[in-house]
Parts: sequence; structure tokens; C-alpha cells
Amino acid sequence: MSLAGGLPATELYPVTDVQEAAHAAIARHGPAIMEYGPVEGLLALRQLIAARTSAETGGVFMAANVLLTTGSMQALDLIGKVLIDPGELIVAQSPTYLGALDAWRPRSPSYLPLDWDLTDPDFDAALARAKFVYSVPNYSNPTGVLVSQARRIALLDKVVEAGTWLVEDDPYLSMQLDGSPGPSILSHAVARSTGKGPYDGPVLYLGTVSKSLVPGLRVGWVIAEAGMIQNLARTKMASDLSGSLLTQAIALELMERDFDHQHTNVTVPVYRERRDALLREANLLLSEWFEWDVPVGGMFVWMRSKGRAIDTDALYKFAVEEKVAYVPSSVFDFTGEDRFAMRVNFTRSSPEVIAEGVRRLARAIEHYLSARRQHDRARSL
Amino acid sequence: MSLAGGLPATELYPVTDVQEAAHAAIARHGPAIMEYGPVEGLLALRQLIAARTSAETGGVFMAANVLLTTGSMQALDLIGKVLIDPGELIVAQSPTYLGALDAWRPRSPSYLPLDWDLTDPDFDAALARAKFVYSVPNYSNPTGVLVSQARRIALLDKVVEAGTWLVEDDPYLSMQLDGSPGPSILSHAVARSTGKGPYDGPVLYLGTVSKSLVPGLRVGWVIAEAGMIQNLARTKMASDLSGSLLTQAIALELMERDFDHQHTNVTVPVYRERRDALLREANLLLSEWFEWDVPVGGMFVWMRSKGRAIDTDALYKFAVEEKVAYVPSSVFDFTGEDRFAMRVNFTRSSPEVIAEGVRRLARAIEHYLSARRQHDRARSL
Repeated sequence: MSLAGGLPATELYPVTDVQEAAHAAIARHGPAIMEYGPVEGLLALRQLIAARTSAETGGVFMAANVLLTTGSMQALDLIGKVLIDPGELIVAQSPTYLGALDAWRPRSPSYLPLDWDLTDPDFDAALARAKFVYSVPNYSNPTGVLVSQARRIALLDKVVEAGTWLVEDDPYLSMQLDGSPGPSILSHAVARSTGKGPYDGPVLYLGTVSKSLVPGLRVGWVIAEAGMIQNLARTKMASDLSGSLLTQAIALELMERDFDHQHTNVTVPVYRERRDALLREANLLLSEWFEWDVPVGGMFVWMRSKGRAIDTDALYKFAVEEKVAYVPSSVFDFTGEDRFAMRVNFTRSSPEVIAEGVRRLARAIEHYLSARRQHDRARSL
Repeated sequence: MSLAGGLPATELYPVTDVQEAAHAAIARHGPAIMEYGPVEGLLALRQLIAARTSAETGGVFMAANVLLTTGSMQALDLIGKVLIDPGELIVAQSPTYLGALDAWRPRSPSYLPLDWDLTDPDFDAALARAKFVYSVPNYSNPTGVLVSQARRIALLDKVVEAGTWLVEDDPYLSMQLDGSPGPSILSHAVARSTGKGPYDGPVLYLGTVSKSLVPGLRVGWVIAEAGMIQNLARTKMASDLSGSLLTQAIALELMERDFDHQHTNVTVPVYRERRDALLREANLLLSEWFEWDVPVGGMFVWMRSKGRAIDTDALYKFAVEEKVAYVPSSVFDFTGEDRFAMRVNFTRSSPEVIAEGVRRLARAIEHYLSARRQHDRARSL
């Protein structure tokens, strides 16, 4: 059984609603959604996302501020193509979403971990050289951390001062297990701006329906100032000509009647129950060796080995023998140093399966420690 | 009116069939097509494409030889990412599909025009240095040219000898206006291979449903040896995680009952009539200044200025004044030298609109030539 994946619960997918939305979308738009692009995506969906963003942030967002993408992953790829010249510096929340590291690898960037204390003057100098800052403030993958409002505002101040860009990746927004995370960094950027015109701030905000509806539509979006949207759209044109207007039109049908928000009323209680089942069993069986913060949203618990006693790369072999999987911290670490934590998913499996997974993890740890003791004894003979 | 676009006729899109296929696909696969990937795409569609390719070529193609992409354009992007290091050489049929030039521009390749006579020993040397050859043998965009079987075989021989790759881009296969184009270069590669195992030749073949069904599904594919498919899939993972299984499942529904092939029985007679309307009017009004080969398939007539007397970049302004558009040859030319031809589309508009477009083009040419005569007189004073 796998506690490794980063997927929503398949059995909660609103299959019939998507089916009805597909029928309605084709009836409504007809041949217009059988065409290539526009590369920026379906205008009505861009307008809806702009209107929602205006309402949520208090700013002025137009369709010109929105580019639709093949999930947020394509947005990361396009941002890499537009912003990163080979070897340039990215300041990134660390540990970092694996997909972002993958997307940007062809540009061979260098990375500096984002120090949230923001007090180091060397950090200011680095920020001035950086092409952008990458942050997942809501329930980050892999750590599940929620970044405080004070830190969001302080980071934005630094970004504005340095004259760089900030990429705010927000795929887990709908997965609020314990209350609202508060305003996005984009909202703070709106609040800072003095003009009354369309948004022209330094934040590129990435949204998606992958968690609020279904991943398979592959509908995500970038919100940014209009010139940046044009640059990203030109680059998208050279990457796939355009996304599928059909899947965008399905998302439009569902979002127009606020179905994505309503659907979270179904999913969130399920995910909360699963998180709690994981933590209950982990408190019993894993807390001798691991510690963690309770995530208030998202899909993951980030378990850190106490005193760095357990190498989660080395533990993995023993977990596989117990037929349980997690993701070791090393894959999220651009410094390559963190081998003492693991990402454990709680959205994909039932509470019973999760509890069994934790029991297997506990056995794997016992076997790993026992093998290491034997090894150490053999060496000391 | 526009004779510039490269689009099928919107009014022929099988809207109701796509609608029914969407309903059936969701009923059949349920939540399985609401998920992320597999990155290679929907297995059943990969198997169908492999089976069709086996039947068409006489080779052995498996799902492992097929990667589904967001149209052929994403295939071009992925090929660039996998194969081209900055500044490397591509040998390309010239003039070249604009989208390919766009896709590969970030890699800053150098280009050598493909000389179909294949007799120049310098060409052999260049081929040995080239990362791949790019060819659109069936009704190329922009010229509409059909490459002969003898040239296909001769080119493949050279490619095998040089130990390089050959990218065969075949989006217009379904648009056969005057008979079959004969075997693909991929078929010849199959015929050359000695083993009985799965395909392992040097040809990467690109297919798509954009012309045989609708562009808006954004379903294309690469057929290649399995190791190359794995490399392309890894790169796709870092570009968009996966395409939409939903649109792939819709394509599957339609292709399983051979609807794409049957649909060409509707579209091809319409396109043939439109091509003939274009050529009839052009023979009357444009043949004084332009010459062309009659395209036996595809979407375009490539009109070359007799004696290079008309600069189609300069003509464009006069065409715009007459409210008619075409695509000047300069945009397809990586050497930047060809400014004496134009691509004229015949699939998008009715015969009447096409004929009116040609009349406007003729007027634009008269005005262009008259303005040039005035300019020349003024200079000679």
C-alpha cells in the first residue's frame, strides 16, 4: 500500500457532474471549442477566473491577466522558459515541490533556500540577483506547512525592494482542513499597489482545478501582469499551440455554478478524517522516532526523524519489504542534504488502509534499526 | 477575408459525434480518466495506434512505441528538448513548418536545407553531424509538396548511413485529395529492419487527430523506438505531468469505430472542391505573376512569383488594404531569403469566398505593381 502519492481520492471524483458538464459545454459552444486556441485559453473561463480573483483580492483583474495552462505544471515549465537563463538564481521555499525542480532542471538554475526569517543581509543581496522567488504558502508539498500572514507580507516587501518576481504556487487552496489560510501573497500585492488600473504587481499566481475538481481535465492558470501573460502565451504557442478548449469549457461549466467550491464540502471532511487517522496511529507507533507538525490543510504530513537518527533513503528498502511506500526527503531537496524526513500522504487511502500503512512503517523502522545494530556490532568485532 | 490560416473547415467538425464520444468515454472509464496520466497517455489509445501502425507498416509496434502528446506541436517541443543541444545542426525540408521553427528556437539550432537530390557529398558530411532530419513528406506546410517514394527511400538510406534520427511529421495524412501518397518513411524503415522484434528504427513519426477529427481535442502522438519514447515521456513529465486522459479517451471512442477514417469521406470532397475553386480563379487572375504546382493533398497552394518579380512581404500591405490575407514565404524560411512566394489556404472558406479572395489578391497585386512603377519613376527623375 502506498502513502507516497500526491493524489486526491479517486472515489470522490464528481464523474457524473463532469459528464454532464461535457455534454453542456459542447452543446453551448459547439464547433468553437473544437478549434485550436486562442493560445491564452477559453475567454469565458479567463474572465471568470479574473472576476473571482478581483473579488477575492479587491484588485482589478481582466482576462489579459490570465493564461490557462495544462495544469500548474505547464505554468512552471513556461515560467522556466521565459524567466530562467541557464545558471541563473532562484530563491525557493525549501524543501521544494519536486515538479518545479523537474520543470526547471533543463535551465540548470542555481538555488538558494528561502530563509523565512528574512533578517540576513546576504539574503537581500541574493534576492536582488535572483530571477524569482518560488513559494507554496498554502500547505506546501512536501511539508504541508502553512506560511503565516506576517511572513507573506515580509517576503513581498523584500521582493518589491529587490525588484524581482514572486511565483506563488497555490494548488492546495481548496484543501483547507482547519480553517482559512487567509489572504494570498497576490492579495497583499494588490493591497500594496497605488494605481486603480489592472493588476501590474510582481506576483505570478498559479491556480488549478486538479484538487478542487479533477486532475484529468488538466486545467490550470497563471495570473500575472499583462505583459508577463503575453510572454508566457508566446512561449506556450511554441510548446503546444494551445491547450484543449474542450476541457477548459468543462471547467467553466462547473465553476460558473460554483461547483468546485461546493465539492470541497464533500472532500474536506473526508480528508480531515484521513489525516486524523494517520496522526492517531502515528502518535501510537512512530512518535518514538519521528516528529511532525499537524498540517492544517493539503495532502501530506512531513515526518522528521528525531535527532536525524533515521536515514529515510536507507529506510526505504525496509518499507518496500513491508509493502508500504512513502517519499523520502532527499528527492525534494536541491541541496541534496536532507535524508532524514519523509512525506506521508493521507488523501488517497481510507482511514483503515492508512492505519495499516503506519503499522507497516513501524515494522519497517524496527527492521531497519535492528539491521543497523547488527551491522554496527559486526563492524565493532 | 483570410486565405492565411492553416485550419480545417469549422462547419465540418463532427460536434455531435464528439459529444456522444465524451459521454461514452466517461461512462466507460469513469474516475480512471479523471486522474493524472500515466504520462505516456491512455494505454488503450496507445495500443490502438500501435496496432494500426503495425497493420499499415507491416512492422511490430507496441504501446511502448507510442507517446501521446498535446497535438504534434508538443511532440516537436519534446523532441527539441530531448535531442537538440544549443547550436546543434538540424537538416530540414525547406521551407519549413513555422511551428517547428518556433518549437526549436529556444535551443538555437543551426539549419541546413534538405536537398532532395541527395547527391552532394558535403550533404553526407552535414548529415553525419546533424541531430536529426525533419521532413513533412505528405503535403508539406507551407508548400503542399508530396515527396516521392524514391526520395523517401533515398533519404532513409542516407539517414541510416549517417546514424542520425529522422523526424517524419505527418499531420495532413487524412487530407488526400488525389489518391494515396503511398507508404510513410516509417514503413520503409520497418521494411529495412532485419529483426522480428518491436520497432527499433531511426524514424520518429508524428501523427495527430487535429485534421482527421478536430484540433480542439489536442491529441497527437509520437511513434518511435521504445528508448526514445521513454526519454520523451520523461521530458513530458517535466513539461505538464501528463496530458488529458479525457480527451484521449474521446479520441479512442471515435477511432475504435474508425470514425476518423469515415469522416474523411465527408471532408475530402469538400476540400477538393475548394482547392479546385481556388485554382480555377487563380488560373484566370494570378497566373500572369505567380506559378504553382497543383497540390494533391493538404491545405495549401504555394504560389511562387514568376522571376521573383513580386516581394510577398511588400505585397502584404496592399493585400491588407483589399482585406485579404495570405502567409508570406519569409516566415517559413530559416535562411531568411525567400520573400517571393506565398501560402494560400483552401480548406477554411467556401468556394465563393475563396474566389472572392483571389479577386482581391489580384487587385492587391495590381496596386502593388502600380505603386512600384510610380516609385521607380520618381527615383529616375
